[in-house]
Formats: sequence, C-alpha cells, structure tokens
Amino acid sequence: MKRLYHWPLDPAGRLVRLALGEKGEGFETLESPSWAPHPDVPRLAHGAVAPALVEIDSEPRMFACGTRAICEHLEETSQGRALLPQDPAARAEARRLWAWVEAACEEVTDTLLTERVMQWVKRDRQPDSARLRRGAHALRGRLTFLNGLLELNGYLACRELSLADLAAAAHLSAYDYFGDVEWNAVPELKDWYARMKSRPSFRPLLADRLQAVRPVSHYTNLDF
Amino acid sequence: MKRLYHWPLDPAGRLVRLALGEKGEGFETLESPSWAPHPDVPRLAHGAVAPALVEIDSEPRMFACGTRAICEHLEETSQGRALLPQDPAARAEARRLWAWVEAACEEVTDTLLTERVMQWVKRDRQPDSARLRRGAHALRGRLTFLNGLLELNGYLACRELSLADLAAAAHLSAYDYFGDVEWNAVPELKDWYARMKSRPSFRPLLADRLQAVRPVSHYTNLDF
Repeated sequence: MKRLYHWPLDPAGRLVRLALGEKGEGFETLESPSWAPHPDVPRLAHGAVAPALVEIDSEPRMFACGTRAICEHLEETSQGRALLPQDPAARAEARRLWAWVEAACEEVTDTLLTERVMQWVKRDRQPDSARLRRGAHALRGRLTFLNGLLELNGYLACRELSLADLAAAAHLSAYDYFGDVEWNAVPELKDWYARMKSRPSFRPLLADRLQAVRPVSHYTNLDF
Repeated sequence: MKRLYHWPLDPAGRLVRLALGEKGEGFETLESPSWAPHPDVPRLAHGAVAPALVEIDSEPRMFACGTRAICEHLEETSQGRALLPQDPAARAEARRLWAWVEAACEEVTDTLLTERVMQWVKRDRQPDSARLRRGAHALRGRLTFLNGLLELNGYLACRELSLADLAAAAHLSAYDYFGDVEWNAVPELKDWYARMKSRPSFRPLLADRLQAVRPVSHYTNLDF
C-alpha cells in the first residue's frame, strides 16, 4: 500500500497524484503543507519535504521524495501505462519539458499561488499586490510558451501524453483554483486543458476544496 | 559521435561532462554561453538551451537538452558505469538529492556565480555587492546541508557515487573557480570534494580557463 504526504494545492503533490492516477495505483493521503509539515516527513530523510511517497507495507519502508524521484520510481516499477514515450528522442523531450515546467513555474508558485494561499492560511493578511502582479506576468509568459508547443503536437512533448503534460496540468490547475489562468488568451492550451481535465486521474484534483475559499466557478467545469 | 553544447563554468554543463566522463563516452564540445547561445541550440527545439547533447551521426539527429533529460538518457542507453544505484530506495534518494542540489544551488548560481562571470564578460561592470553577499550566504547554507549528509555515508545519497554527487561537485567546482567555497568550515565535504576532484572525469573541468580570469590557486590542487 502506498501513502502520499502532500498538500492539495501544491503543484508538486498534484503531479504525483496525477501520475499515480494514470498508473492506476491505489494510495492513501495525509496532508503535509509546507508551513506545517506532517511529523513523519522530516523523519524520512535529512531535508525531506512533501510530496513524499511511502510504501507502508515494505520493511524497511521504501520512500521517495520530490517529483523527480517519485515519478521516475513509478515509471520504473509500476505496471500501469507508460508516462514517458519509448522512443529515446521523445523521451528526452518529455523530460526536458517536464523540467522546464517545474523550473519556469517556480516563480509563479512562489509569488502568485503563495500569496493566494497565505491569504487564506493567515486570515488577517492582505496579499502583496506587487508579488501578485509579478506572478501574473510570469504566468502569462509560461502560458504563451506552452500554447506554442501545442501548435506542433496534440500533447506537449510528442503525440502521446507524458509527464510533461501532467506537470503542466498540475501547475495550471492549482493557479486555476483561484481563477488566475487567462484561458481565452491561449486557445490551444485551453483545448488541451479541457482534455486533461476530463481524464479520470484529474477527478480527485477537481474535488479538492479549501475550507473558506471556494474555487472559481469554471474550476470543475469540463467545458469552460 | 556525441556533441555537447555547453559553457565551461555553467554547473549544468559541468554535470553533463562529469556524467559523460564517468560513462567513458567520447564527445566533442561547442561553446554556448547563456548570453550568446550557439545558433544550433535554439534550432533543436522550442525553448532549447544549453547544455544540449546531440548524436551527430544519427538521422534524424537525436538530442537531449537539460541535465534531467541528458543524464537519464545516458543512464538508460550508455554501457558505462551506473550513476544511479540499483536498489529502488537508494535510487530514489539519489534522485531526490540530485534535484535538491539543482533547486537549492539555483539561487547561488543566479547571484554569486552570475556576478563573478558577468564581471568578466562585461569588463566595465562592477559586481553587485548585495547579490554577492546574498549568494555567499545561500551557499553557506547549502554547504552545511551537504556536509551533514556526508556524515552518514561516504557519498551523498548512499555508499556509492551517484548523480547526486556529480551534481553537487559540478556546482561547487564552478563556485570554487572564483574561490567562493569556504572549505575549512565543512570538513566532511572537503574530504569528499578531494576524492571527487581526483576522479579522471574531473580532469577536463580542472583544465578549464577563462581568458583573463585565472582560477584561485587551490582550484586544481588535489590536496587543498
């Protein structure tokens, strides 16, 4: 049995949940937000943070922390559908874009998403409007880049779904909870996201609800 | 035949050169600094940047960009020594720490290393002392973390050399060119680095020379 320590709106945890869903792996979850980690997580390893995946039946307990370790581990060990193409060139391209998404969206997560989330966590705190603007500007650049990739193929890296798509959808879905993605400016990306959203692996993400902050009205709508 | 587009003091390119060296793969290099990319690189793919590894004999030319795509590709296809442990738990730990090094050192590279390099590229520019201080402070934190890991095992992730060690050595060697690593504060890390430096894969990195900026005197010294 697998257990995932995560926080529902963290893009990294969302990527792992999508990968587990696509692989058809059952798992239980425990919450471990960055501002109040679950006490199990730092005990796994020096500097360990969520997302952390633990095999709770194995002895010693096998664990993997972080999207790179977890997703490559699943790809190597799970019997479910492949999330990296077989062809070496397409495989390299999927990993390049997966890494690109994680690096390029970090600024958006650190500013825009963090401000939105912290406003909710610390109720008396107003978001920093300069950081919101910086995050929104960075996000527009990332959307344009991803939209351009989709003009070439049906998915980001090649003609098949890969970890690059799951990583991008994981990030955008978190920003979309707060209505921060301007979908109408990026029509190819909007079409792709409608397809991603309709996958069974996406359902648990669309069911996430923060107490006191409801998502924007189109968050769960497959035809938005 | 493999060709690597890189810039000698870029930590990402250094990791790829170390991985190729450990694998015993021959390769030619072309320089592609971030401020003046080689014209081949952006033609490889939308948003492609160095390091980029190209198989110049294959048709169509196989390429991989970025450390994640390149190193995983080498691990999957090269006959040389394994750079990830076989055991799944140790393998996950090596990937966690490899990812940690790249994410945690990004701030050091963007501030301290970039200021040092840009002072040399744009001769009339004085480095920004606030950015130098911020980078030096961040680097001290990273050194302490890595030193703590080495108290457990001979290498960062387990008892064997892995991509986590190569990634850390690649970053530290670039900072060390300018004398920015306070080795005496981190004795375990200093011992480990002396072992890393004495590996044959390290020799080309120790031979790198920027025009007009010589490295600190201990840069090539195996007993520093």
